[in-house]
Amino acid sequence: MYSQDELSQIIQNGIDTIVYSTNAPRLFDPVRYTLESGGKRVRPTLVLMATNLFTDDIIPAIGPALGLEIYHNFTLLHDDVMDKAPDRRGRPTVHVKWDDNTAILSGDAMLSMAFEHIAKTRTILLRPVLELFTRTTIEIGEGQQLDLEFESRDDVTEEEYIEMIRLKTSVLLGCALKMGAIIGEASEQDADILYRFGTDIGLAFQLQDDWLDCWGDPKTFGKRIGGDILCNKKTYLRITAEKTAQIPECSGMSEQEKIDAIKAFYIETGAEKACREKIAYYHGKAMKELSAISVADEKLALLKALAAKLENRNI
Amino acid sequence: MYSQDELSQIIQNGIDTIVYSTNAPRLFDPVRYTLESGGKRVRPTLVLMATNLFTDDIIPAIGPALGLEIYHNFTLLHDDVMDKAPDRRGRPTVHVKWDDNTAILSGDAMLSMAFEHIAKTRTILLRPVLELFTRTTIEIGEGQQLDLEFESRDDVTEEEYIEMIRLKTSVLLGCALKMGAIIGEASEQDADILYRFGTDIGLAFQLQDDWLDCWGDPKTFGKRIGGDILCNKKTYLRITAEKTAQIPECSGMSEQEKIDAIKAFYIETGAEKACREKIAYYHGKAMKELSAISVADEKLALLKALAAKLENRNI
Repeated sequence: MYSQDELSQIIQNGIDTIVYSTNAPRLFDPVRYTLESGGKRVRPTLVLMATNLFTDDIIPAIGPALGLEIYHNFTLLHDDVMDKAPDRRGRPTVHVKWDDNTAILSGDAMLSMAFEHIAKTRTILLRPVLELFTRTTIEIGEGQQLDLEFESRDDVTEEEYIEMIRLKTSVLLGCALKMGAIIGEASEQDADILYRFGTDIGLAFQLQDDWLDCWGDPKTFGKRIGGDILCNKKTYLRITAEKTAQIPECSGMSEQEKIDAIKAFYIETGAEKACREKIAYYHGKAMKELSAISVADEKLALLKALAAKLENRNI
Repeated sequence: MYSQDELSQIIQNGIDTIVYSTNAPRLFDPVRYTLESGGKRVRPTLVLMATNLFTDDIIPAIGPALGLEIYHNFTLLHDDVMDKAPDRRGRPTVHVKWDDNTAILSGDAMLSMAFEHIAKTRTILLRPVLELFTRTTIEIGEGQQLDLEFESRDDVTEEEYIEMIRLKTSVLLGCALKMGAIIGEASEQDADILYRFGTDIGLAFQLQDDWLDCWGDPKTFGKRIGGDILCNKKTYLRITAEKTAQIPECSGMSEQEKIDAIKAFYIETGAEKACREKIAYYHGKAMKELSAISVADEKLALLKALAAKLENRNI
């Protein structure tokens, strides 16, 4: 089995040696800029890890793994245009450093490049991998659409919120693991177990993100504590709290006073507890799923460690 | 062999029965709006025609043909955002009828849907079809990038202009024909002949578009005569004329006076003649290519008729 460090090195080498088309080099400057900015490379790592559960030969998974990483970065690039986000990973976003048109067009090129890399899958496995990836990319678009729609709605239910984050972020983790499993020639049953495991871990991760925005450690969270509260984002906490009570009036308060007031509101209404319980629920569900896989327990250590790390946000 | 009408009917049926994902229905409203607005369906027709040169069973080509049509409409949708175009085919563009974010996101969904339909190719032919399509989409992005770059350059050469229109518009016609040929299990040689034929016809068509902007029949051209001149677009005529002389100073002129002055300039400098010669050159090159294909002459009638119609712009 490959270690986490070895997998990271393989992915970094892959990113560094991507071959770019040369007819219009400037089209790819923002693509390089986006891909070189790092991030945790969680999704390609999951692809390789899943393949490695079933075979020592992970080479055939590298192309598709890079495809998934390129795709993920494409979604960030276009989402940043739509959200008018000024920076990402400590650097100006593409539409700020260049302009909106460049961001749209180079994003489109990244989506094509993602498919180009997915297409490196061995011929015999190309159809299931391509169908999985295509369906996932459409679902992620749907998740982003729901997220945009929710901004102007006041009646979003808990179920709708969970469905939105499932589509927008969780299915890609499920897709990464299932893709790796298919390439490792896992049974359909094992591939589906990994899909559900990835999706449930993704839901736990996203709910954790909502919770950490209020109670996270500023040193490890990476974003400003209370950011969601200050921009009135509809999170799981807010949707759950508003089911039972009216959100407190915060006009005239300082930013810190507002954050404190809303955090207290989340605790009083039981939303904070409900959120922790929901995280534990999806985490438990994911682990229960995984226990049914026909892979020796010691081989699952790396996957479990990555899932645990994701939850504790230390990566 | 299928008639042109039968092929059009098959494509229209295909467009009408596209299955949309249902998690966020509003994501697909702009997609339906774009696809139902018509257009000439040239590209999917070319796919089916090419398949039909080699087999009577064109059913396996329908999915990929629709994929190409969805892709083409995606490029128009995103190009309209980048160009801030107010209307297309007599209706408001998506970014006007909805907004920029909706246009970006629903365009992204269309690109995924295009791949979803390309993926309906029979397993044994999936890899070459997918590789052809992926490379083509990247080239078209490069063509659009060059087009945007040329707007702010004064030293674009004739060769650079030809290369830009080859990438931006011609390779998709070549791709359509080659894809159809692959699905019809043509020889590699015949598939490549059709690719070059399509690309050359595409170049002739695009140069014709430049020429018709000046000397076309307003009744059949579909766009305002002189439109390129009024917005100072760098066309083949302009680039060629400026190689030998300075473009006339037109400030203070009425729109019609400017159009007349520039048209006279194109004739005096020989650019008009050079343009007609270049159209004839690519048309002749295309026809010569086609004569080497191992398909009975009578089967090529429909393809030649479509090429001729494209040149005369009566479709």
